[in-house]
This record gives sequence, C-alpha cells and structure tokens, in this order.
Amino acid sequence: MIGFSVHATDLNGSARTGHLVTPHGAIATPAFMPVGSLGPVKGIEPDELQAMGYGLMLNNAYHLFLRPGHEVIARLGGLHRFNAWRGAILTDSGGFQVFSLAKLRKVSDDGVTFQSHLDGSTHHITPERAIEIQAALGADIIMAFDECVALPASGEQIGEAVRRTTHWARRCLAAKRRSDQSLFGIVQGGLDHDMRKRSADDLVAMGFDGYAVGGLSVGEEPASRNRALETTTAHLPADKPRYLMGVGLPDDLVEGVARGIDLFDCVVPSRHGRTGWLFTTFGRVLIRNAKYAGDERPIDPACACPVCKRFTRAYLHHLFLVKEMLGVRLNTIHNLYFYAGMMEQIRQAIATGTFTAFRTRYYERKEQAQMQADSMDEQESRTLTASLAEEGQP
Amino acid sequence: MIGFSVHATDLNGSARTGHLVTPHGAIATPAFMPVGSLGPVKGIEPDELQAMGYGLMLNNAYHLFLRPGHEVIARLGGLHRFNAWRGAILTDSGGFQVFSLAKLRKVSDDGVTFQSHLDGSTHHITPERAIEIQAALGADIIMAFDECVALPASGEQIGEAVRRTTHWARRCLAAKRRSDQSLFGIVQGGLDHDMRKRSADDLVAMGFDGYAVGGLSVGEEPASRNRALETTTAHLPADKPRYLMGVGLPDDLVEGVARGIDLFDCVVPSRHGRTGWLFTTFGRVLIRNAKYAGDERPIDPACACPVCKRFTRAYLHHLFLVKEMLGVRLNTIHNLYFYAGMMEQIRQAIATGTFTAFRTRYYERKEQAQMQADSMDEQESRTLTASLAEEGQP
Repeated sequence: MIGFSVHATDLNGSARTGHLVTPHGAIATPAFMPVGSLGPVKGIEPDELQAMGYGLMLNNAYHLFLRPGHEVIARLGGLHRFNAWRGAILTDSGGFQVFSLAKLRKVSDDGVTFQSHLDGSTHHITPERAIEIQAALGADIIMAFDECVALPASGEQIGEAVRRTTHWARRCLAAKRRSDQSLFGIVQGGLDHDMRKRSADDLVAMGFDGYAVGGLSVGEEPASRNRALETTTAHLPADKPRYLMGVGLPDDLVEGVARGIDLFDCVVPSRHGRTGWLFTTFGRVLIRNAKYAGDERPIDPACACPVCKRFTRAYLHHLFLVKEMLGVRLNTIHNLYFYAGMMEQIRQAIATGTFTAFRTRYYERKEQAQMQADSMDEQESRTLTASLAEEGQP
Repeated sequence: MIGFSVHATDLNGSARTGHLVTPHGAIATPAFMPVGSLGPVKGIEPDELQAMGYGLMLNNAYHLFLRPGHEVIARLGGLHRFNAWRGAILTDSGGFQVFSLAKLRKVSDDGVTFQSHLDGSTHHITPERAIEIQAALGADIIMAFDECVALPASGEQIGEAVRRTTHWARRCLAAKRRSDQSLFGIVQGGLDHDMRKRSADDLVAMGFDGYAVGGLSVGEEPASRNRALETTTAHLPADKPRYLMGVGLPDDLVEGVARGIDLFDCVVPSRHGRTGWLFTTFGRVLIRNAKYAGDERPIDPACACPVCKRFTRAYLHHLFLVKEMLGVRLNTIHNLYFYAGMMEQIRQAIATGTFTAFRTRYYERKEQAQMQADSMDEQESRTLTASLAEEGQP
C-alpha cells in the first residue's frame, strides 16, 4: 500500500512536491516514470536506471500479458524479480493498448474482446481480469481498466466512455484483493470540461489511492490539453497523487507540474534514444545531422551523465548512421539523465518557492536555443560539407 | 611499437603464455580480441570491456574507411579517442572484407578496385593505401594487406594468392611510417602445406613485428585447419606473436593455443549474443528454447558475470522472444565474460604445466554436456509445453 504526502507547494498551491512511499521504496514527486513496455526500458539495465535516480518505473500489463504471460511472471516471483528491478513499479491496465494497438475490438459494458496485435489470438479483458492480471504481475501501483477514446470524438462518444470508465472503475475497486497494491482510478472526458468534472467526481466518490488523468496524450493541441488538465486536477483531492498518463516532452512536464501533477510517464526519452533526438539544456540535438560528424564536444557540455563525460557528438553521430545498438543505448542513457535532472530541478524550484522563475527561465532558454539553431544550421552544414568534399570522403 | 616475451611453455613448447606490451597497455597472452567492426563491440561500452579483462580489441579498417572515414577519425584524434577505448587496438587491413563483402572486385598486383557494399561507390586499395588508412586510424597493431582466397580453391589460385600476398607484404613494410605502430604479416596458403611453408618463410625473411595466420576461418573442416595451422606455426619464429585471424569457437581456441597461437579474434561471442547462443561451462544454452520460459536459474550457475548474478534464463528467454535490445546486450556480456574466463584458465593451465589436463577435461565436459542435452531436451520441452497449455497461456 502506498503512502503519499505533500511537502511544499508553489504557484498558489498548484504545484507541489511530495513523497510517495511504496513497498519498494520512496519516490520524491513530481517524478517521471521511464517506461519498460516489455519489461526493461529498452537497452537499459535496472541498476543503471536506479543509479540515474529513478525509483519508480512503468510496465505494460497488456504487453506482458501477451508475452510471456502474467502467470509465468507470477510463478517466477512477480515483475520486480523478473526484471531484477529493486524499485517500485506501476502497471497500466492495458486500457490504452487495447484501444490503440489491438485489432478487431468489441467493447461492451462487460469488457473488451480483442485480437492480439502479435498473432491475432482472441482475448477478453474485463475490469476483474485486468485487476487479476495486475495482481499476478505484482506491481506496487495498479491502474483501473478504462475506456480510452481517440480524439476527435463526439460529445456522445466521450460521455459514453466516461460512463463506462466509471462503471469499470467501480468493478476494479471491488475486484482488488492484494493489500500491498494501490489502485489508481483514471479520469477520462476528452477535452470536455463538464465530462472531466463528472469523471473526476465519480472516481473521487469511490475513493481511490490515486487519480490518473487519461486521454490527454493522444495528439491534442497543448493549450486545449492544459485547460482540460486544469479542470481535472481542480476536482481531485490534494492529498492523493495525481498522475498524467503518457506525458510527455519537457514542456509538458513543466505545464503538468504547474497544474498539480505528481507523476508522469512517457516513452519519449527512450524512443528518442532510437531516433537520435537528444535533449539538452540549450535545446535538442538531432544527432544524425551532418554538422556533428566532426564535433568533438559532448552532447551537452553542461551535462554530467556518463555519456557526456566520455563520448563525443561525432561518435554518437557515427553510431547513429551505422545503426549501432550502442548508440541507441547511449542516447537513451543521456535522455533519461536529462529527464531525471529536470525533475530534480523542478522539485527544488517548488521547494524553494521559485517555480515561476524556473518556468520563465525554461521558456527563455528554449526560445534562445531555437533562434540559434535556425541561424547556425545552414552555415554549419555548408562548412562541414565543403571540408569533407575537399578530402574526397565518400 | 610492441614488445613481446614468452614466459612459460607447455605441450613440449607448443603452447605458450606471454606478454604483449603496447603503447596502450600490456596484454597477457594467449588472448582473445573482441571485435568492434564499426567501432564498438555491439552494445558494449569500452569501460565494460576493460572491466571484463580485455586489453586489446579489433577494429575493421574497411568498415571505418567507408564510415565515417579514416581522415574524420584522424582529425578527431584517432581510433582510441573516437571509441573512448583506453586499451590497445589492432586493425585488420581490410584484406578479408574486400574479398568477402565488397562487390565487383578487380584484383591485380597493384591492388584491389571494389565497390562498397553500402552504396556501390568505387574505391581502390593498394598495400600503401591500406597502411595509410591504418596509420590515420592509429591502431597499435596494424595488418598487412593480403589476398584472401575462398576455399575450396585450386592449387594455382592458392599459389597466386601467396605470391601476391608476399608481394603486397613487402610493399606494406616499405610504406609503414609510424614508429608507434607494429605491423604483422599474414600467412596465406589455404590448406596446402607447401604453400603455407612458402608464405611463412617469405614473411619471416622480411621480418615483421608479428605473424598472423589468415585464410583458416573460412569454413574449412577443423582437422584440416588444425593441420595447416600446425605447419604454419612450425615455420614462425618463437619470439614473435602469432595471431590466428577470425577464430573462433571455444574448441578452436583450445586447439589454436595447443599449436602455438598467442592471439585470436572472432565475432562469435557478440554475434551469438544476438542469436541467443550462450556459452557455459557445461555446454551451450540456446536461450530461445521454450524449456527456459520458467527457468529461474542464471545462464550458468558457475559463472560470476554481472548477468548471471542478476538475471534468470526465463528473463533472457523473454527478452529474446520479444527482440529486446537489452537481451542482446546481456547475452553478449555473458559470452564475453565466458571467453575472457576461458582464456584466463588457458593461461593458468600453461603457466602451471597443466594444459594437457585442461584440454582433456574440456573435451570430457563437452561430451557430458552433449549427452545431457540430448536426453533432457525432449522431456523438458514436453513438460513445459503441457503445463503452459493447462494455464491457457497464449
């Protein structure tokens, strides 16, 4: 069972720092959860993740249910043991994956029948089964089985999804057995403020250990998302953790924290390890860019991560071009350190009442970086291309 | 410049331990060199490689010449700096890759014109250019540019390749400039004992810093290879290092050491990281086998590597099936530790005059493992399949 306490607030009480205490350790919030869809964060060992400062990670019940199976994992001692991860785990219920990945879905108040995206095998997941699967996996925090709706959606579709999500949330709560697990409800409602309020009120009335905000990482426009988020958190109790699912880029973390979010998860740092998009204090570095071919500097001279201490942009550029696995891993390590560092800065800013200054500085730096990037790009590219051409490089 | 000294011998002087001193550290021999074709050993960081006990690794001049280019690397301070590798490096000259990978090759006494396997661009490599490329890369040990011949080959083809290899070796020696690099000649001759003797004598007469045995990792039958190897080493000076190129599996290391080899290189430990073939003290583990799905044991209970200390066969089996990058990395780490451990055991056996006993025990254990594997396989497979079917796993 988790415990949660708020320590400091800023921004007129909107932003907060806190502590989440779980059976597998305490986590300072606001916190970002790296995602290990199939178990590990791609290419990263659990001890490394802990060394970066992460104490809570996310695993997907949907993927693990399909492979290797929740009962195989249960027999092997549960997910922590399976992954050799000593920190805490949050599993999402599969609600999102079922709606985004699976084929031929049939949804009713009973549950969802779908075909695995892997091999077409048919499965039926109900709220009870989602809880049973997550109980077998043994995460510290488990999620209610919800109905996600893709935007844009009609008011009727959104309303129906809220109704069903509330109905399923009640059944999830009733099905929960393990006292060492904590269950979060998921607020839906799209971008409709009345629906968001309705959904939040429904769940709060039932009383969950925490509340997640779902359906706001599906491609909607940031300003609309932020307004919907604000409405949602305004209707969630202050003394329970709030978790914004599937979010996000650094901007989104700042804006989410400003609106009272305590937990985030997103594949971005690891996925961008693969696309070679590297986060830095001065903007992003797209390592595939030819301008880095001869660049002896680290990704970010201000970064103290193991990658920036040992490898050059030129090397990472080379690894990217030749599709070397080590490159993906190093990129991912850097990005995860960046995210961990950013969350630490955010927590410190809130704790010292300087979150507004932090936020302002964050956007100023971002704008500067953008202007520099635009002016440098063309010139640097031309320079390097010319020098390489002189030397007859292929 | 390297220094080499023989310390102990066994097997009537055939097997030897020694020390290779390079500008980037000393290496105990016999030693195995992990291969980083495009720079790193796939998925492995240089510091990790050193922690495993490796002090010398191989990089391919052919691949690095094509991408990112030897002059880019030279401008970045050379290969050691590029790779952030503090140990020693041996580059092979590209002789083998040009003959095995490149398209539309035209060979003459002048050199080889070929098309890059990557983009079809045309390149002309001569012995002088091969030395120039390796000088730019800056490895501690560089290789002569040789003509490899695919087996089976006619006596005439083998003789012609020996003649040309000798001719090119002379030009490589003449082209060598850097006094901090050491140049090895490569003995060719296929499986023809007279040709092997001829090639060895030619090179020894010129005087190289070390002698490699080429053309014995191209699919020939082990017994024939070993005989050709024996003939070759019999005609190489005892006070210079002998390097068997592209070899091999554990058996091949034992047999190579028995015939006086000091250095080996092979992609096997890393390549088999990707195919899930794991080396153990009791035989190989093919991690994809269904029998490991519920196996809580480490790959090898007798292994002290970081993977065996933390992860189960079940987890590695899962990672393999879901094609997770971390699985490849962990498999590779284990295999590299295995190889490093085996070479250490070999060195100790020679130093204590117990190599024969080591060799005997090695083959006994191998045979036992084979018998066990054959009898267990079928039974274990059926058991696990049945139990999984009972639980309705997909």
